[in-house]
Amino acid sequence: MHAIRRASVRASALAAPQRRFMASANKPLFPGEPSGPSIKTAFPGPKSIEAIKKLDKVFDTRALNMLVDYNESKGNYIVDHDGNTYLDVYAQIASIPLGYNNPELRKIALSNEMVNGIINRPALGNFPPHDWAEMLHSSLLRAAPRGQTQVFTGMSGSDANETAYKAAFMWRRQMERGGPSVEFSEAEQLSAMDNKAPGCPPLSILSFRTGFHGRLFGSLSTTRSKPIHKLDIPAFDWPQATFPKIKYPLEEHAAENAAAEEASLAEVEHLIKTFHHPVAAVVVEPVQSEGGDNHASPEFFRKLRALTRKHNVLLIVDEVQTGVGATGRLWAHDHWELTDAPDLVTFSKKAQAAGYFYNNPELRPNKPYRQFNTWMGDPVRALLFREMFNQIEKLDLVENTRRVGDYLYGKLDALSQKYPESIKNLRGKNRGTFIAFDTPNRDVFLHKAKSFGINIGGCGTSAVRLRPMLIFQEHHADILVDAVEKILKAM
Amino acid sequence: MHAIRRASVRASALAAPQRRFMASANKPLFPGEPSGPSIKTAFPGPKSIEAIKKLDKVFDTRALNMLVDYNESKGNYIVDHDGNTYLDVYAQIASIPLGYNNPELRKIALSNEMVNGIINRPALGNFPPHDWAEMLHSSLLRAAPRGQTQVFTGMSGSDANETAYKAAFMWRRQMERGGPSVEFSEAEQLSAMDNKAPGCPPLSILSFRTGFHGRLFGSLSTTRSKPIHKLDIPAFDWPQATFPKIKYPLEEHAAENAAAEEASLAEVEHLIKTFHHPVAAVVVEPVQSEGGDNHASPEFFRKLRALTRKHNVLLIVDEVQTGVGATGRLWAHDHWELTDAPDLVTFSKKAQAAGYFYNNPELRPNKPYRQFNTWMGDPVRALLFREMFNQIEKLDLVENTRRVGDYLYGKLDALSQKYPESIKNLRGKNRGTFIAFDTPNRDVFLHKAKSFGINIGGCGTSAVRLRPMLIFQEHHADILVDAVEKILKAM
Repeated sequence: MHAIRRASVRASALAAPQRRFMASANKPLFPGEPSGPSIKTAFPGPKSIEAIKKLDKVFDTRALNMLVDYNESKGNYIVDHDGNTYLDVYAQIASIPLGYNNPELRKIALSNEMVNGIINRPALGNFPPHDWAEMLHSSLLRAAPRGQTQVFTGMSGSDANETAYKAAFMWRRQMERGGPSVEFSEAEQLSAMDNKAPGCPPLSILSFRTGFHGRLFGSLSTTRSKPIHKLDIPAFDWPQATFPKIKYPLEEHAAENAAAEEASLAEVEHLIKTFHHPVAAVVVEPVQSEGGDNHASPEFFRKLRALTRKHNVLLIVDEVQTGVGATGRLWAHDHWELTDAPDLVTFSKKAQAAGYFYNNPELRPNKPYRQFNTWMGDPVRALLFREMFNQIEKLDLVENTRRVGDYLYGKLDALSQKYPESIKNLRGKNRGTFIAFDTPNRDVFLHKAKSFGINIGGCGTSAVRLRPMLIFQEHHADILVDAVEKILKAM
Repeated sequence: MHAIRRASVRASALAAPQRRFMASANKPLFPGEPSGPSIKTAFPGPKSIEAIKKLDKVFDTRALNMLVDYNESKGNYIVDHDGNTYLDVYAQIASIPLGYNNPELRKIALSNEMVNGIINRPALGNFPPHDWAEMLHSSLLRAAPRGQTQVFTGMSGSDANETAYKAAFMWRRQMERGGPSVEFSEAEQLSAMDNKAPGCPPLSILSFRTGFHGRLFGSLSTTRSKPIHKLDIPAFDWPQATFPKIKYPLEEHAAENAAAEEASLAEVEHLIKTFHHPVAAVVVEPVQSEGGDNHASPEFFRKLRALTRKHNVLLIVDEVQTGVGATGRLWAHDHWELTDAPDLVTFSKKAQAAGYFYNNPELRPNKPYRQFNTWMGDPVRALLFREMFNQIEKLDLVENTRRVGDYLYGKLDALSQKYPESIKNLRGKNRGTFIAFDTPNRDVFLHKAKSFGINIGGCGTSAVRLRPMLIFQEHHADILVDAVEKILKAM
């Protein structure tokens, strides 16, 4: 009640058109949230500085952004160790869907099923729980993208992508070999033990420049975001195509952007036809996230699907960061309206679980123990996802994110007219809250945001990326946009 | 009480020397366990067959061993979907330390800290909880191997090994570059984006034949267990040395075994000196587990440490399967009594958490975001480990495993005298319960074990491997050995 009243007070202070938006959404999705940020100390505060020094003795803290008091954080608000409260539009690198200390998730965390999952962690491939099928049906499979009917569960985004790559390589070689029933040759079996062809074939995954797909050895070989992610780590000789460099505003660069997309597709086709290590799959993010929030048109992706189909190359859509509602559709690739679904769709982050969806039975390797590991995911994560998805449906959170995203985009668009040098290349229109813009001195902007009560992240070299939770509402957008203006004025 | 009485009844039926052993251990470490296996149906039973069929529609079940009722499983006993109760000496591929439905772990699972960790999963590198240092000190770091003071947390064994390899490569290039303060050259930064040298250098990790280190692309390149693990997956051109093929009984093959170990070390040194992709690190398991429970002497490992030190190559000890008490020491490499600790020690499985320990500050990359990912482990797992380690200390479970292991080894040794054709190459003396033996028709043996109420695993091509939990006691060993004899008779 208290929070609802506060929200109403806020709404009454807004201009009329804003009030109209609020009317449809003035009920807080997360009851009991703070009414706004509250900053008491410099950032980082004295308690944090001391604790970080201690932590650094045993744990590398150079990437540390904020030391968090998770007990005090609530909904869209994150609280640091010094008691400062920030509106969190970064959300653990885009991985918190329903707010901190969500009471419905708390109930599930205390359930007998969850406790059982925590203390009896199964090796899912060998010893699944008797109700694992029901669990999958009632959780991850309910959210399966259109056209996908099966799931392989894993541990993280990198793991999801690498196991998807493995599935692609095994599928490819099976096809070349003549089908699932053809046995491995002795030469294959012997050479595999030496990491050599034909057993370990020099096949490749094609990825896009400025893409990000993870940091283990296979996924890192497809990651092309920044040198710091790749330096000193041996990599596979795999091909990369240029991702279309879209110019904004879109209306003013339609022909140029279409040409960039055609050039990218031509490069993909050329690489598929000519690269010296045959391409088993193309992996692509619906929005290149770590690489700077780079978008392309649905048309581009539809053509990419057609191109991969034409050349019998798999299409892996990496929805690790884009998936689970943030773009105003459950999966970002829903925006493409494909008639021919991707072969594999990987997920993690906001799903709080990880793995890949697929449909084609040929993507199950022809023998057991080829796609296998000890844990193969975690039932605890499937349980959590089940309740998350219940909440997403019950509160209509994908629609919320679509609507709030439009609202937020409109306000930022207006702000960018006012500060054209500071808010450039605003992008993410009709993509829910998956919005970004470029700003000069981006890192200063991100740091300064803390003193205005905003926890916000960057990507690429100059982008500010918005990654609010699915419970982010119009009144949060108001606070955010007000703060963005204040930050810009203070720069 | 009930269980204690039953255990006493059992003890009274044993011969005198056995009773002496029991006297020191007749208190059940896990109160309320079943008194023994209980088999009601064929394996798999009718309910399981039906449920597996359903599960297979959405989840590959060809590696499925048993559909488990985790609600009914207790302590060392696993219960299947048809209500059959098995003594579990496989323990989720060696990953359950304290028994199913451990009451102390249940308490922790219901604690506010745990609930908080489940519903507010942090991106640990950016936004660690304010008490993350205390958490690490009170959990993983308490168990750090001798000489290790820091920890990098990860998600799984493969992840632990791959991040350790990344640390090794970055350390190596930093050394070659002239230290942590030397900046990356432009050529390095540019070439890294193309997966090419010098940015992505053709360095290597040396592993041993028949070793297993995981299944993602980097770890799989060091895995040399079986073709089925590696076929069709592109691999790095990395070197492998022969692991000494030790012959049993040890007393009869001392000279031969010593020669095999010397030959292996000579091969390692030769590869370090000559392999065309310079060796940054050697990775080795204290006991090659998936590869067949292959042991080598402490002397071998001490020499391997000296050799890597001499050539300025890192030594990574992969304790994913051997770690956390099963060998009768907390870490299997404690048996080596090294004066010069390994550079990196990786862990997972029975730790229920994963990552690597290290000490040398140069193994922290020179800049942030080089060894990084979204979640970087999971506080839930650190919390669970903390309570596990409390129990390990309180119940003296490493000593329990050492003592019970000796007892079990003695009984199996006696049985191998009786059935010399069926129990061959018994190994794991003085290595706690980390015991294995070869048997003809191993897979038939493993399957038949179910009908005698034993859940047991294999490794390599012909080994039966014992991987009981740390709460495995003498009375469980009696049941196991009785059953092994029955299985052999039934073969």
